[in-house]
Amino acid sequence: MTRYDAYLAESATRHRDELFAYLRIPSVSTLPEHADDIQRCAEWVSGQVEAIGLRDVRLMETGGNPIVYGEWLEAGDAAPTLLLYGHYDVQPAEPFELWDTPPFEPAVRDGRIYARGSTDNKGPLFTYLKALETILAVDGRLPCNVKLIVEGEEELRADHLDTFLHEHRELLACDACIISDSALYGEDVPSIALSLRGMAALELRLETAATDLHSGMYGGVAPNALHALVRLLATLRDEEGRVAVEGFYDAVRPLPAEETAEWSRLPFSEDALQREIGASKLIGGNEHTVLERMWARPTLDLHGVWGGFQGDGLKTVIPREAHAKLSCRLVADQEPEPILELVKAHLERHCPPEATLTFESELAGASPMTMPRDSPFLAAAREALTVGYGKEALLFRSGWSVPVAALVKDRLGTDSLLLGFGLPTDGAHAPNEHFDLANLERGTRTMVAFLTSVNGRH
Amino acid sequence: MTRYDAYLAESATRHRDELFAYLRIPSVSTLPEHADDIQRCAEWVSGQVEAIGLRDVRLMETGGNPIVYGEWLEAGDAAPTLLLYGHYDVQPAEPFELWDTPPFEPAVRDGRIYARGSTDNKGPLFTYLKALETILAVDGRLPCNVKLIVEGEEELRADHLDTFLHEHRELLACDACIISDSALYGEDVPSIALSLRGMAALELRLETAATDLHSGMYGGVAPNALHALVRLLATLRDEEGRVAVEGFYDAVRPLPAEETAEWSRLPFSEDALQREIGASKLIGGNEHTVLERMWARPTLDLHGVWGGFQGDGLKTVIPREAHAKLSCRLVADQEPEPILELVKAHLERHCPPEATLTFESELAGASPMTMPRDSPFLAAAREALTVGYGKEALLFRSGWSVPVAALVKDRLGTDSLLLGFGLPTDGAHAPNEHFDLANLERGTRTMVAFLTSVNGRH
Repeated sequence: MTRYDAYLAESATRHRDELFAYLRIPSVSTLPEHADDIQRCAEWVSGQVEAIGLRDVRLMETGGNPIVYGEWLEAGDAAPTLLLYGHYDVQPAEPFELWDTPPFEPAVRDGRIYARGSTDNKGPLFTYLKALETILAVDGRLPCNVKLIVEGEEELRADHLDTFLHEHRELLACDACIISDSALYGEDVPSIALSLRGMAALELRLETAATDLHSGMYGGVAPNALHALVRLLATLRDEEGRVAVEGFYDAVRPLPAEETAEWSRLPFSEDALQREIGASKLIGGNEHTVLERMWARPTLDLHGVWGGFQGDGLKTVIPREAHAKLSCRLVADQEPEPILELVKAHLERHCPPEATLTFESELAGASPMTMPRDSPFLAAAREALTVGYGKEALLFRSGWSVPVAALVKDRLGTDSLLLGFGLPTDGAHAPNEHFDLANLERGTRTMVAFLTSVNGRH
Repeated sequence: MTRYDAYLAESATRHRDELFAYLRIPSVSTLPEHADDIQRCAEWVSGQVEAIGLRDVRLMETGGNPIVYGEWLEAGDAAPTLLLYGHYDVQPAEPFELWDTPPFEPAVRDGRIYARGSTDNKGPLFTYLKALETILAVDGRLPCNVKLIVEGEEELRADHLDTFLHEHRELLACDACIISDSALYGEDVPSIALSLRGMAALELRLETAATDLHSGMYGGVAPNALHALVRLLATLRDEEGRVAVEGFYDAVRPLPAEETAEWSRLPFSEDALQREIGASKLIGGNEHTVLERMWARPTLDLHGVWGGFQGDGLKTVIPREAHAKLSCRLVADQEPEPILELVKAHLERHCPPEATLTFESELAGASPMTMPRDSPFLAAAREALTVGYGKEALLFRSGWSVPVAALVKDRLGTDSLLLGFGLPTDGAHAPNEHFDLANLERGTRTMVAFLTSVNGRH
């Protein structure tokens, strides 16, 4: 047992109490009623960063939710400088009734911590904090320079972070950004994602009349916003689930054959995936494999559709308006703005003539990114994962979006390493989100190994 | 001025206070949280019926919300017996934010009373109560026998009323049912609707996965309940708004040419209708006139569609389930059960293979009805309308459903006369529902004229 391991063992109870306190704060950034919780959470993180021994700790203004900053820069100019990234905000927990235990009261069952934010991203960020604490407590110093930022708008939009990175590009200058907000390929598979999909989102409203109308009086002549909406939205995908927006796939590049060949080393079962999500059928057509559709093909998904009466019983109303939220996942050379323009043009072209279409907002955008295979930080991370998990790490791709990776590349000119310890099956964004105690422990040990070895690999 | 008019004039302030007290009770039958208000409202009506002088007044159990009963049966066997009908329950007032003044705080603006239930059906029923009060106060007796029922589940479902009518068919035996729950053709047009459309409603749920999923992780392979729902619902109507359910129009009979010729005497402007509802286009195709589509053709309308995230901001979820409520308006020989079977068979046939379809409930059903043109009660009502409004009454049809008319025919063997004083433009079931003070006054005088003359016409 190393001295780091001994420190972690003797601190285990305190560490878990601290993580639970962090998870109890309902830091939901997308709902205005949680503004106070956001502030409280930022202050909690700031207190932690100070307590573990980073210097110059502060809450930095962004025009939105504050960013927690801390640093340790005494490893010398020859040592690499890492920018560590996490976020303290979480997704809404609705619908609450689908949670087995309350989303903001962490509960341990079967070796997992259940709570909103446990895997996205409070648990994985916590491994970074505890690895830093451990090395500083044991050695009194870090072997590399570290700058840490923890933001509060990852689930919301990246505009403030973008401005923040640009305005503070000298403060944040670094050799690599290490992002905790990512997942392993699967349980007990130490692994690193080489690419991220981007995202482009929008919200729309259709209107068909000046007021809601009685279906007995006006049924047969009055246009119905819900019928207009379902007709319009049905044009967005074909019956196999391929995106039917004209030009949508034009900027997608085919994958190199050697990469898809590598993927065959990963444990994967299409049947198991289908059982895992509880679907009777996977969508997307058969022109591309399931892994390619999840990692290297773009998508369009409706996230919310609503209009008319949703209560118990019957209300025979012809609704005057109806709403939808959707987003696209982007790959390769697809950029958010041009994709949004294609989607909007499609929607305008297919809007039923009795309806007025309004785009309510463009909710988020992020470019896709792929990290270089020859990065020394990637090599250090693979070795650290081998130490932390006791088996060789594999490379894969990730289907989700981590806007910060694209922003860091744009604003700081730095590549990002996705070094997170959640699992795809942890239920991020869904009821009963959880994070494995095993990944909490192995992730922390991986980060200790990474931070103590990265200097030599650089 | 008749003695009846004089009585009404001197009672006007008190009558309005009473109506406002009635409108203040949020007797929403479709929302369980208003159960106490329903009971309170039934007791309020019962107190009124007692106060105006009816006999044997009581709240009768139905297995659901109570029915208020009262009678006055001393006009003798030679006089006709009328069953007067109204309902004290109202539609939900949501969305509250679209009301200019609170829905359960009646406000008078521009000669109208604004409140939920003002036109459907508290205001029109109130004309019946005040006409009875007036004749009993002035004459000490009624010239016809009267039985009054005021139910509390009109907006909910008719099952309990159906059982009630059957179980109490001797108590309720009558020569005609007079229904306050109907509307005039238009403002300043005294008129009676000859027919009502029926209704058949259902609610459905689609499921595509065991849990909500993250669109970054699973987008491209996971089925999305919202996409399945919009595809399915888009098959229900064609692009002109005609119902696309196979066999839907089979039981519709063509209208006699003489009836559509009569309709040309009614003031009607398609442009004005379109402006009134604020639509850029009327739907339903051009094979039938607008009046025919509203009165004598069947319809299918979505009343509510929902699934996924509806809050502020973005939640990149792939929803596992999605919901819809819909109903059909029926005409001629269409019956609710066979029509529901056609709609369900269509939905099952068109359900996307990745989705599981469940019918949550069949919310309501009512047969369409047409009243005989040679009824003596119809003749008396036309004359009374001429007295009350000072101009000749016209006949038209009504597009909406009054389930009680079909039930009364089935259970008591009696035809119904639709003698209500609301307007199609009163916003029944919508925000800012209202009832004209002019119709309150003229309606009450029409009912005095009808009740005092119907014996001679019978």
